[in-house]
Amino acid sequence: MTDPASSISQPTTVNVDLGERSYPIFIGAGLIDGDELVPFIPSSRAVIVSNTTVAPLYAERLTQALEAAGKRVDLIALPDGEQYKNLETLERIYDFLMEKQADRKTTLIALGGGVIGDITGFAAASFQRGVPFIQVPTTLLAQVDSSVGGKTGVNHPRGKNMIGAFYQPRCVLADTASLDTLPDRELSAGLAEVIKYGLLWDEDFLDWIEANVDALRQRDRGALTEAIRQSCLIKAEIVRQDEREGGIRALLNLGHTFGHAIEAGMGYGRWLHGEAVGAGMCMAADLSHRLELIDAATVKRIETLIASAGLPTRAPAELSTERLRELMDSDKKVEDGRLRLVLLGRLGQARLVDRVDDEAIRATIEATRATA
Amino acid sequence: MTDPASSISQPTTVNVDLGERSYPIFIGAGLIDGDELVPFIPSSRAVIVSNTTVAPLYAERLTQALEAAGKRVDLIALPDGEQYKNLETLERIYDFLMEKQADRKTTLIALGGGVIGDITGFAAASFQRGVPFIQVPTTLLAQVDSSVGGKTGVNHPRGKNMIGAFYQPRCVLADTASLDTLPDRELSAGLAEVIKYGLLWDEDFLDWIEANVDALRQRDRGALTEAIRQSCLIKAEIVRQDEREGGIRALLNLGHTFGHAIEAGMGYGRWLHGEAVGAGMCMAADLSHRLELIDAATVKRIETLIASAGLPTRAPAELSTERLRELMDSDKKVEDGRLRLVLLGRLGQARLVDRVDDEAIRATIEATRATA
Repeated sequence: MTDPASSISQPTTVNVDLGERSYPIFIGAGLIDGDELVPFIPSSRAVIVSNTTVAPLYAERLTQALEAAGKRVDLIALPDGEQYKNLETLERIYDFLMEKQADRKTTLIALGGGVIGDITGFAAASFQRGVPFIQVPTTLLAQVDSSVGGKTGVNHPRGKNMIGAFYQPRCVLADTASLDTLPDRELSAGLAEVIKYGLLWDEDFLDWIEANVDALRQRDRGALTEAIRQSCLIKAEIVRQDEREGGIRALLNLGHTFGHAIEAGMGYGRWLHGEAVGAGMCMAADLSHRLELIDAATVKRIETLIASAGLPTRAPAELSTERLRELMDSDKKVEDGRLRLVLLGRLGQARLVDRVDDEAIRATIEATRATA
Repeated sequence: MTDPASSISQPTTVNVDLGERSYPIFIGAGLIDGDELVPFIPSSRAVIVSNTTVAPLYAERLTQALEAAGKRVDLIALPDGEQYKNLETLERIYDFLMEKQADRKTTLIALGGGVIGDITGFAAASFQRGVPFIQVPTTLLAQVDSSVGGKTGVNHPRGKNMIGAFYQPRCVLADTASLDTLPDRELSAGLAEVIKYGLLWDEDFLDWIEANVDALRQRDRGALTEAIRQSCLIKAEIVRQDEREGGIRALLNLGHTFGHAIEAGMGYGRWLHGEAVGAGMCMAADLSHRLELIDAATVKRIETLIASAGLPTRAPAELSTERLRELMDSDKKVEDGRLRLVLLGRLGQARLVDRVDDEAIRATIEATRATA
């Protein structure tokens, strides 16, 4: 594990190895003003898709960097929030592309958080059956998770990410300086996914996170660069082994079946995705303990870390056990009527469990709901 | 070339060779009642997507055949027509799948013509980032063209097939008996694509079509089976060489840039796709002659064959040259601002031509518009 102090302002690159769809993730402060993206834009045209929060902060700088390299750049700024990650917003992107006469070689650049990345990625996957795509994630969550691995999509009123595609970007540019403008709540939401990688894959990394969680919350650039690098390395390795989620990629859903149920039940946008995953990982830990996979002390340690990252450890009181259980069945992880869950075998090692006992699931929901 | 009489009621199979995405096309009379599809449905559930014209004719028979094999089958019947090939109809499919709690292994079966195949294919490509997909085309056009090759999608108000994906079916089942119920106008529209294969790839096949066009219009089953088999062989070979249209697959667009402009200009649904392609091929032939690629007698021969198939050979008088020219620029074949057209080098051999002289294009439109 690199010492935070030694990595300050050193840009680094993680390669995602997917054969002919391989791509680099550039990580470092100030990269948005650089020319790393230029070789990945195959024609003279690019369209930046951003939102009304992020565009005023970074769109002009990114545009200038690309125009300096001779590119024509158009910008569309969408409304900000998970509640806009839907087919209607997707259609606004298509309308914009048609209006600007974008063609099959026009590159779409997602500038923003996970919502912008997911929706822009699906627009790129589907516009004219696929145009080049680049991710410039500006939230910690997007930098460590949603911008890596090629999952794109939008929500359906009845379920999250129900409509989408696997579509890899040409490259990812994670500018750590863009985290300076990130609200505390969103920084914590990103830490949920960082913690997830430690929990499911690498106990050493988990130890490192525990030791550095305060530095991360204080936005120490060295600590953030290291957290992003390690997270991307783990995700890249898992995606390399299983691009289309036939097997171990499903482990990345640790905490997500519970989390998605919380998000859907509360209405998209009220809980941040990372917040729901934080609570969801505590629920997965509780269930893992109930099924005698991990001990009570480990559950406690996980809850403590998640709380120290500024995240909720409990499902919201206003959702009933029945409602949460029902929402879990609408999640994509149901196959042929069976609910599959990612649980913990031990710290640093997640496993897929089929046909989990329904009573145990309900008991976990009961036990992990906040008291009203 | 097989003699029509010898192939009556002999089912045949064409294999589309795409590595791990390879699939068979079953061609024959009465296959809809058989069990060819069953091994290609990986779980216990299938959803038939059809339209209100085709569903009453064939949905029950197909459902019975699948239920006999132990499958649970749901049916959604969409409104019939190219004007419904849009995002709104796509959303109806998603809503239905969510309502029925379809999961990632639920197979979508397209039962109908090209519109149903294209929209269902894109729904299958995008629902939960991809579910199994089967084509049961019931029009000649879909059997020889749209059901083969994996192009799926919907129209945008400003352009045809602007939103979609490359997504291969698990198998295709072309029941020639289903052509008995096809209106004459749609049969002719299907013949446009059959003629296209001869024109662009195989002069012998073109000769055969000229000799058999009357038998085809009279729905001689042997002639139809042979026309479908040859068309699928040619399309399968082209798609095998170039699945994602980086090169020669573009040749399949012979007549289509003109044709799409006609369809868009008239409003989707007024001209059938095959009718627009019929006129579009005459326009491509005229332009090929203007550029001294083919002689006047060849243009005449092409026009005669297209007319004998019951197809228009002229663009509609009500669209101005200016309007048609402008609509051609919205077509997907524009890349980085350049219009590429498929033209004829000789009979049985098409070629892609970049930077076609704009005056020649306008002259062709002028010369090939119907007189009002």
